[in-house]
This record gives sequence, structure tokens and C-alpha cells, in this order.
Amino acid sequence: MKIGYIQSSPTFGKKAQNFKQIENLLGKSKADLIVLPELFATGYTFISKKEAESLAETTKGETAEFLMRIAEITGAVIVGGFVEEDSNQIYNSSLIVSSSEVLGTYRKLHLYFKEKLWFSPGNKHLKTYQVKEAKVGIMICFDWIFPETARLLAVLGADIIAHPANLVMPFCQKAMIIRCLENSIYAITANRIGEEKRGDSHFHFTGRSQITSCNGDVLSSAPKDKFYIDLVEIDVNQARDKNLNKYNNVLKDRRTEFYSLE
Amino acid sequence: MKIGYIQSSPTFGKKAQNFKQIENLLGKSKADLIVLPELFATGYTFISKKEAESLAETTKGETAEFLMRIAEITGAVIVGGFVEEDSNQIYNSSLIVSSSEVLGTYRKLHLYFKEKLWFSPGNKHLKTYQVKEAKVGIMICFDWIFPETARLLAVLGADIIAHPANLVMPFCQKAMIIRCLENSIYAITANRIGEEKRGDSHFHFTGRSQITSCNGDVLSSAPKDKFYIDLVEIDVNQARDKNLNKYNNVLKDRRTEFYSLE
Repeated sequence: MKIGYIQSSPTFGKKAQNFKQIENLLGKSKADLIVLPELFATGYTFISKKEAESLAETTKGETAEFLMRIAEITGAVIVGGFVEEDSNQIYNSSLIVSSSEVLGTYRKLHLYFKEKLWFSPGNKHLKTYQVKEAKVGIMICFDWIFPETARLLAVLGADIIAHPANLVMPFCQKAMIIRCLENSIYAITANRIGEEKRGDSHFHFTGRSQITSCNGDVLSSAPKDKFYIDLVEIDVNQARDKNLNKYNNVLKDRRTEFYSLE
Repeated sequence: MKIGYIQSSPTFGKKAQNFKQIENLLGKSKADLIVLPELFATGYTFISKKEAESLAETTKGETAEFLMRIAEITGAVIVGGFVEEDSNQIYNSSLIVSSSEVLGTYRKLHLYFKEKLWFSPGNKHLKTYQVKEAKVGIMICFDWIFPETARLLAVLGADIIAHPANLVMPFCQKAMIIRCLENSIYAITANRIGEEKRGDSHFHFTGRSQITSCNGDVLSSAPKDKFYIDLVEIDVNQARDKNLNKYNNVLKDRRTEFYSLE
């Protein structure tokens, strides 16, 4: 199965331009699963809730349409971030789409920094989506620091974590090695590059998008400051073997009866 | 508060010799908390349950007595591994002792490899112990790969994880950086060096004992192949500040209502 990511550099608020950048990077690439960064169409650094709302869309909006079009071109299921509007709330979400339909959205459970001022926290349970022979779970950016997120996706049977990101802290790429190892799961962290200075916020996004294997190997690591696309072939079955050795299994060895606080 | 570890090289089955090695390494060191490796008195590579039983002790045995004596000499609370015998079961445990009493034992929840053939899995809930101004939790070696262990200790209020180890896999030291960061907690990983070839098992222990700060900095890293002692001064208050920034807190931001599988 061929999986990959695009590392782009969105220009704030310029959806058409950001779509075009993704399309140019993709060229004639073919794959089964491609992950784009968090909020790849809008940019990240909102200065008000009103501004974030003005860039929000439903799952029938132009970002969903764009992603379905690139799903058609690439033959892949596409995961990418957007500002989701639903029932008068907005969320920092990711779409997952095939060429023919929107398969679902994930609403970021753990909001970072001022995101809390614009977005409602995710209100849906984690789930997995069938993509070819793989089960794919989604988490967004800062979800990485909460080990519960990747753990739950693994327990739900995910083979691959699609992880759109706009990283500004330096630890995530190393943490994903541990997340993959402790869950025997693949992960695709699609980060962005560039900087945004808006209001009193000034973010440098760290690039280094990464595909991490279920044994902790880094299968792809993007430059820190360049547009980039990479696609790698993986064997999904490796993520289904949760045995570390003849005696240990990263999921079955959990002592869940001791994981509550009583 | 001064915390540290001893990285030793136990000789299998030679308790008196292994005690002496620890005592020589300690010299006139003074500290508040010192961690010794897993099974530092007995060695690790048992070839039968009977053999492990023959080296087992209660909390009133010679290993507890030895640890209380070095607690007296150093002024520190001491954490170190032993084979614990209780009610006809044996456990891969760690003692925590002051100069005047055994404060408790922790029984390894996640047994590694053939440990499952000799030891009963830990049957007690995680807890913390007051050591000077700090709350100290204990986990043993392979517990590191289960993020639930460190997380529970942090939720229970631990400021420092005392982590006796006999590591043979290469990932733990890097993982402890992530464990400390995701929980804003200190950790002392006391590993051993050397090798043991017994029965059909041949283990090389990886050294590189490590003290990790609550912000992910490595405060001490031992050589991979030398006896070693290190003591560092830490500010426990830093572990009590779980805020990553003005908006995010590594414990309060947990979305526990979404961490079950329903």
C-alpha cells in the first residue's frame, strides 16, 4: 500500500492559491492514502473567532470538493485539515474523502493555544476508516502530546494514523517514533512550513513531515523549510502484528484493570 | 532536592558481592533520593521459576536491610529492585526504603519476555510516596512502553518517577523524554550494564541510565558500559506546573470523556 504526505506553505486566507500549491506539488502522483497539513487551505493564525468563522465550511464546501478532486486525480483517499462549521459551532477538523464522497471528519480533541478562543473542542469519538486493506485513524497536530489519542486509535484497530499538523514545538517528530512503537502502528505526520505573523502571534512552522513505521523507523522525513511530497510503500500487516517478541504484545499486555485510579 | 542513580553490573546470584559494588560506588555520597537498577542484588536472567524463588525475599530480607543501611549512610530514600516473595507468589518488585523503614514495594505490572515464566504480574495499584517535598512514584523497566504507567503516576500526583531498569531494547531512554514531557514529570531511569548468558538467553544491558527533566531535558546520561553514579539538583516545583503555555495544561487538557471506547 502506498501512503504519503504533502508539506505545503499555505498563504493565510488564500484558499484558491493554497489549493493550487497542493495540486502543483502532487503532479501526477498516484497513491492509496495522502495526508495534507492541518488547516492547509486557510492558514493557521486567526486573530478572532469571527475571522475563523469567515473561513469555515461545511463538509459540502469548496475544500471538500477540492479534496475529492485530488482524490480522483491521485487515486488516493485524502486527509486534510479545514475549519468545519456545524450547528453554529466551528471546529479545527480534518476531512477524509475518496473521489466519490466525504467519508467523515475528525474534530481536534486537544486544542492548542489560542485555538481555544476560536474553535469548539472536538465532540465526536475517535474512529477508523477503511482505506484499501488498512484501517486509518485521524488525529490533528497537538493531539500527539496526549498518548491517549494514538492509543485509542490503535485499540480501535487503526493500522495507520493520518496526522495533519501545523507544528510549532520541536518534540512531535521524536514523539511519533514512540507513539508508533508503543502501539505498533504507522503514522503520517503532514506538517507545514513557513511563518505567520498576525495579531500578537508569530509562529514558525517546523516542517520535517514524517512517515513513521510501526517499529519506530522513520520511513520519510521532509526538509524543515521546503515544499515537499513523499510517497512510500508499506506493509500494513506489520501493524497488525502487535507482538514485540514471543512473550509480549503491546496491546494485550496492557493491565487495564490497573489503569483506573482505584 | 538532590536525586540520583547508581548504574551497576550485578553478578548473577551473588548478593553480597552486588551489595558491595553498590556501597563502593556510593562512597560518601549524600542525596534525597537514589534509584538502583531492577534486580540489582540477584541479576536478571533466571533459567527457572525455582531459581528465581531461591533468590526471593520478603520485605524483611537482606536486600531490604541493605537498602535501609545505604539510606542511613546517604541520607536518601532508596528505590531498588528485588525478587519479592509474598503469599507463595514471587514478583519482580522494587523496594522503597528510608533509613528507618520499608515504605513499600511496587510489583512490576508489565512483565517482559520470560519474566512471565517466573514472576506473577503485579497485583497492586500504582501509588506515590512522600520523599522530602516530592511525591515519588515507581515503575520498573518495561513499564516504560505502556504510556498508561507514567500517566497514572502523574495523575496520582507524582513529581518524580523512580524507574529501576535492566534494559535490553534501545528505545527507553528516548521514550522517557516523551514520558516526562507529556506528563511534566521528572524521571530517574537506573539501568545496569554488562551481559548475562544463561540457559538459552543472552542479554546485553544497555547502560545509559538517565535523569530526565519535566520539560524533556536530559539532566544526566551515564555511559553505556561503565559503573556510574550521578546526583543532580532539581526543582520539584517545576513538575507541579503542568502548564505548557497560557492556554494548555498537559493534565487538565485531557479529554477523558472521549478516552473510553464508547
